[in-house]
Amino acid sequence: MKFCPRCGSAVNLRIPEGDDRERHVCSSCERIHYLNPRLIVGCVPFYRGKVLLCKRAIDPRKNYWTLPAGFMENGETTPQGAARETWEEARARVNNLELYRVFDVPYISQVYMFYRCDLVDGEFGVDPESLETQLYLSDNIPWNEIAFPVVHETLKDIFVDNERGDFPVKVSTIEYKPRRA
Amino acid sequence: MKFCPRCGSAVNLRIPEGDDRERHVCSSCERIHYLNPRLIVGCVPFYRGKVLLCKRAIDPRKNYWTLPAGFMENGETTPQGAARETWEEARARVNNLELYRVFDVPYISQVYMFYRCDLVDGEFGVDPESLETQLYLSDNIPWNEIAFPVVHETLKDIFVDNERGDFPVKVSTIEYKPRRA
Repeated sequence: MKFCPRCGSAVNLRIPEGDDRERHVCSSCERIHYLNPRLIVGCVPFYRGKVLLCKRAIDPRKNYWTLPAGFMENGETTPQGAARETWEEARARVNNLELYRVFDVPYISQVYMFYRCDLVDGEFGVDPESLETQLYLSDNIPWNEIAFPVVHETLKDIFVDNERGDFPVKVSTIEYKPRRA
Repeated sequence: MKFCPRCGSAVNLRIPEGDDRERHVCSSCERIHYLNPRLIVGCVPFYRGKVLLCKRAIDPRKNYWTLPAGFMENGETTPQGAARETWEEARARVNNLELYRVFDVPYISQVYMFYRCDLVDGEFGVDPESLETQLYLSDNIPWNEIAFPVVHETLKDIFVDNERGDFPVKVSTIEYKPRRA
């Protein structure tokens, strides 16, 4: 941030009075502009023991498989956002959403929330955001073509928990790992 | 948002190509500026069956009681943020943090995450953000002086769950209710 979104003047990085860290402060109107982590909400849609995955049509990680998920929008709830993203990326309707996994990804200031849910009537399609969508059994998951660590971690657990019929909510942190060339 | 934080030019509200809702788009550099919900993280600190509350020293809801909580900062995890806020508002160290309640508050585009935890050595203090901090038994909670619906809902459940020794994670939505004059 270089300019004040409110008045257009230059902003400076400084520690405001009573604060303990640098903020973007407008040099003219004095408004403090806080930057905060963003929430990504998504689904783990189940149908007859299979999970719905989407092959990404856009970067980052184009051509890799992911769970339907995306940035939460203003004015919606986390399950509404997760269901909306599932519709947008996989043309799939879902219900019975239950919080399943939360991931903190502090090195990019993101928090992920995944809801497990049922895929209504087993129906799904494709959308410009996905090249392909498909239901996968545990044995057929393309483990070497998973887009993101949060998706890998979630898929690793969901089939085990589904087998046991017990789905404890877990919070975990994804640490930065440079990707191998 | 009236001006582009990147180049300082005027922004317009319009629907970008491939999108389905209005965004703030720079009239000069074309950058799209997304506005997303903010995360508030907090703690339910327990010590010998009592919960630590803080009397707010600042608006909104000055002089009302709250759980220690505040906006998550970039670069931290949700439990780190919850523990940081507990230190800042109640000068209390906490450990054994476990996710307990998630609240969607869509009418102000906020998501709350409360962690139940132990108050280390039962020690706490005050800080400029709080007029007073105190440990409360279930029977003594000042129910008519609770600052926010999310705090009320969390306190209502935590003592019951503590009695049972079972703490299921719950997600719920706070609907807009005009406050009575």
